[in-house]
Amino acid sequence: MPTTTTTTTTFLYKSDPVRGRQWAGVFRERAPEIDFRIWPDIGDAAQVRFLAAWEPPQDLATRFPQLQVLFSSGAGVDQFDFAALPPALPVVRMVEPGIVQGMVEYVTHAVLGLHRDMPQYRRQQQQGEWRALPVRPASSRRVGVLGLGSLGQAVLEQLRGLGFDCAGWSRSRHDIGGVQCHAGPQELPAFLARTDVLVCLLPLTDATRGFLNKDLFAQLPEGAGLVHVGRGPHLVEADLLAALAVGQIGDAVLDVADPEPLPPSHAFWRHPRIQLTPHIASMTQPLSAAGVVIDNLRRFHAGEPMVGLVDRSRGY
Amino acid sequence: MPTTTTTTTTFLYKSDPVRGRQWAGVFRERAPEIDFRIWPDIGDAAQVRFLAAWEPPQDLATRFPQLQVLFSSGAGVDQFDFAALPPALPVVRMVEPGIVQGMVEYVTHAVLGLHRDMPQYRRQQQQGEWRALPVRPASSRRVGVLGLGSLGQAVLEQLRGLGFDCAGWSRSRHDIGGVQCHAGPQELPAFLARTDVLVCLLPLTDATRGFLNKDLFAQLPEGAGLVHVGRGPHLVEADLLAALAVGQIGDAVLDVADPEPLPPSHAFWRHPRIQLTPHIASMTQPLSAAGVVIDNLRRFHAGEPMVGLVDRSRGY
Repeated sequence: MPTTTTTTTTFLYKSDPVRGRQWAGVFRERAPEIDFRIWPDIGDAAQVRFLAAWEPPQDLATRFPQLQVLFSSGAGVDQFDFAALPPALPVVRMVEPGIVQGMVEYVTHAVLGLHRDMPQYRRQQQQGEWRALPVRPASSRRVGVLGLGSLGQAVLEQLRGLGFDCAGWSRSRHDIGGVQCHAGPQELPAFLARTDVLVCLLPLTDATRGFLNKDLFAQLPEGAGLVHVGRGPHLVEADLLAALAVGQIGDAVLDVADPEPLPPSHAFWRHPRIQLTPHIASMTQPLSAAGVVIDNLRRFHAGEPMVGLVDRSRGY
Repeated sequence: MPTTTTTTTTFLYKSDPVRGRQWAGVFRERAPEIDFRIWPDIGDAAQVRFLAAWEPPQDLATRFPQLQVLFSSGAGVDQFDFAALPPALPVVRMVEPGIVQGMVEYVTHAVLGLHRDMPQYRRQQQQGEWRALPVRPASSRRVGVLGLGSLGQAVLEQLRGLGFDCAGWSRSRHDIGGVQCHAGPQELPAFLARTDVLVCLLPLTDATRGFLNKDLFAQLPEGAGLVHVGRGPHLVEADLLAALAVGQIGDAVLDVADPEPLPPSHAFWRHPRIQLTPHIASMTQPLSAAGVVIDNLRRFHAGEPMVGLVDRSRGY
């Protein structure tokens, strides 16, 4: 960035401080003209032009009157209270290769595990039972991904490469090679009816809260598998427990919960047909994330559209 | 095949009869001139020219004096007693796409699971513990495959595509793009020293029996993962238990055992750091397997080399 102005540009980071120090190293190297600060060391609040945060301070508008862009330090922006943000403030999601790779790894592992009956083999192992189950070729296993953003598309590319019969569903129309793409509420039933393993990668909005409920589960083939890597509030917990109890859902792999951390007493922890991980499917990699933000700052200063800019009308 | 001779050619199948009926359908369609029979319905033993078997009859040489080729119905031939077979009888391993795909799926699932700490997350789930562990990028995870035949190469191609740092070891020299290939005993220590996740896909021979032992485990980085999809007798069981006890091996995924089925009382079943499946990583798919055998019969009649022909001097 040109440094012809005399005022200092401050970039404030408010998230995990260990990662923040890695961001600081990248900024020092690639954007030394920026005064990079880690919360709570904010310096002169009037100089803060850019904020990267998971949870921004509540008094953001009054505290940082010169704020020009809010960056989420993670893939989602559902943790932001948009009503409390200045209406014209640009908000940017994190779209970076580290997040994508982690998600591809997690979902590929989960889908292969369900495809190859690994939950059942684990139950047999506990019983000391040596019994082979019939194998289906991947080409006859129908995987369906809810949400066709950058994560959903990367996941589908990997699963297609493994030979699965792949489809996707999204609010808006997409065209992805080798994937049957469905769009909008009217095409949801056909998508669900052909889905043996359902992967949820939806953004969390008012329209998707409680999306994974008994009506949806009832439209899947009996015994379908669920891989939930969206957000905890997508899922109606009681409906999943009921669907597992009758075998409508065969096994579920959950990486998100509501609340997080999930209390130790919660029924999900000990359920024999639930695999639960503590929201680790995908994490922002500090080094690549900082680079992506610096690239977006250059776009912003050049008047170009930033990658991951949120459309507030749809909430992602 | 030309049917100018007046004698009948009998192909005898001696393995799982359910799959045998699927083979029969393929032969009826693609090689109707062959009299395909399923054990014990052998017809005139003097007419049996070809035998596909997992375990051939012990009196094979005297019983089938006109036998021209023995096909294994599985990927390995270690179940054959070569000393009891006529010295000049060609023996053919099963090399077919169904076996390869199943193995790629199983190993990819196992390696991703170890890479992403899934065994530890399962243990945490049992304790109701919500705790994220550090994530390493796949590019810093060093996977090493023992055995670079068709299965090892297919597995490495998939793992390389997921971004893992891949190496392989084999008795003889190989050259595989993007994979550090090591050959022979003198290069084994360097291969082991750089391997975080070890995948065993060796053939079982006198030279590889007991290959996975304490000396080998000691050369891996501390806490390495093991994925064993070779044969049960490759592994010295007591050495694995000792390596797990001190953390030299972190977690093990085993698809083979000795004997199979493994008795319910065996220590592997209940070991918290062992995932055990009942030899299901890869199974011959009857339809593609029968087609591969018919293609090999045509090669045999044309005097061309058959795919999977065993070199008895090395035992695979």
